[in-house]
Amino acid sequence: MAKVSFDDIEVGMMRSYSQTITDADVKTFAGLSGDNNPVHMSDEYAEKSQFKKRIAHGMISSSFFSALFGKELPGEGCVYVGQNLRFLRPVYLNDTVTAEVTVTKKDEIKRRVFFKTVCYVSGKIVIVGDAELYVPEPA
Amino acid sequence: MAKVSFDDIEVGMMRSYSQTITDADVKTFAGLSGDNNPVHMSDEYAEKSQFKKRIAHGMISSSFFSALFGKELPGEGCVYVGQNLRFLRPVYLNDTVTAEVTVTKKDEIKRRVFFKTVCYVSGKIVIVGDAELYVPEPA
Amino acid sequence: MAKVSFDDIEVGMMRSYSQTITDADVKTFAGLSGDNNPVHMSDEYAEKSQFKKRIAHGMISSSFFSALFGKELPGEGCVYVGQNLRFLRPVYLNDTVTAEVTVTKKDEIKRRVFFKTVCYVSGKIVIVGDAELYVPEPA
Amino acid sequence: MAKVSFDDIEVGMMRSYSQTITDADVKTFAGLSGDNNPVHMSDEYAEKSQFKKRIAHGMISSSFFSALFGKELPGEGCVYVGQNLRFLRPVYLNDTVTAEVTVTKKDEIKRRVFFKTVCYVSGKIVIVGDAELYVPEPA
Repeated sequence: MAKVSFDDIEVGMMRSYSQTITDADVKTFAGLSGDNNPVHMSDEYAEKSQFKKRIAHGMISSSFFSALFGKELPGEGCVYVGQNLRFLRPVYLNDTVTAEVTVTKKDEIKRRVFFKTVCYVSGKIVIVGDAELYVPEPA
Repeated sequence: MAKVSFDDIEVGMMRSYSQTITDADVKTFAGLSGDNNPVHMSDEYAEKSQFKKRIAHGMISSSFFSALFGKELPGEGCVYVGQNLRFLRPVYLNDTVTAEVTVTKKDEIKRRVFFKTVCYVSGKIVIVGDAELYVPEPA
Repeated sequence: MAKVSFDDIEVGMMRSYSQTITDADVKTFAGLSGDNNPVHMSDEYAEKSQFKKRIAHGMISSSFFSALFGKELPGEGCVYVGQNLRFLRPVYLNDTVTAEVTVTKKDEIKRRVFFKTVCYVSGKIVIVGDAELYVPEPA
Repeated sequence: MAKVSFDDIEVGMMRSYSQTITDADVKTFAGLSGDNNPVHMSDEYAEKSQFKKRIAHGMISSSFFSALFGKELPGEGCVYVGQNLRFLRPVYLNDTVTAEVTVTKKDEIKRRVFFKTVCYVSGKIVIVGDAELYVPEPA
């Protein structure tokens, strides 16, 4: 069922996804989370902030990791156990974010896969972290 | 600018938010993230999974932390530096999630505030983690 | 261009629209407005409130007036000048709201149309008010 | 429960919120309300109208009052009793709207709070009105 079966997962395997984060994404995430901090919502407010223009919520870009795990590697059926995130640089509206997940370790007994998780904008790291996934035995 | 000024933030301060996570939230997050893993989207698939019914994405509940930081404590103007998350139990559709953030430490020099971040369903912890926020000097 | 030309609008003309207000509508409006008051969002919170269960934002039902004016009567091209609203009873999730706009007065000189605006649930008035629309001369 | 308790509310208290109204907001409101009047939806249509470019629905900006009441002042638990609105100037797409609610009167017996409600774009009033809120006795 998974795109890559647990047995076939190897350290170093990588999957990535790229999306331009737009106002529509920011408004959708604000609605979902309730975070309508004006640094995300108001051009006028953002101009006066340290960022000078509106920034996207860090959790939008982070959500692409969730999609890569659930759809690509390990794929359907995996269970999200943990995710650590460091927000290193702002993501501005209309930035194109590339999310990349790379297998760093595998625990055969506990059926866990560990990943390095990174988001880039124009080749610079904006978010870095790691994740732990559990892959249940096939039914 | 912040709801609670950096100087007034004290260890032990807490803010919480409660939302019933519904199909609308799950579909919205699936659209935003691209994570349309059938364990979130398909009743039939979920019935055959270990969860027996559809579960919500862990990042939906986690996104309430973002809102509490951005809107309540520290409030507008704060910068999200880091967030660690452990997904301990599934959140099922129509569960009411209560997200709670509590100040655990304050770094006066670096203007950082550290939080314990927990989501509960029916009094049980479903997500636990911690977060680091930066509060810039007022302009 | 309008469905009913200004000259053909008469006192007593009526248009109505009916929609079941669901969780998806409430979540969408919460996102749009930023009003994620838990009385709209959380089953647990709402149970302890005077309403006993989640209620919809009053402005969702009111927004159907906007649609009736813009699409039906006077229709495309009209300008919304004013809207008064009294929220008489709560609208609960899954209530079917019927919005009704009825012409009460016409000002031929200023090209204004005045409406009584009412929303019903199960035959009871939940919202009542009046509206003023301006219909520009056709180009 | 309320952010500001009824007893602490005073005439003159003010809360504001600022958001750039974009195409995403307009499309979301059109979907929610059914008001897909082409003056909101179609660049070509709007160019030929008196407005020369697409305008946002007046009720989008008005909905920020709802959020300020429900989240800020009086805050959670308050009941929206009435809202009057006059749409004085169009809000164009990508305008930044600042919504402001100011306490004008308080009825201690009926536990009502009355507000002046104004939306500004670039310092000019686009919407003006008043609102009445009811704050139930704490349980």
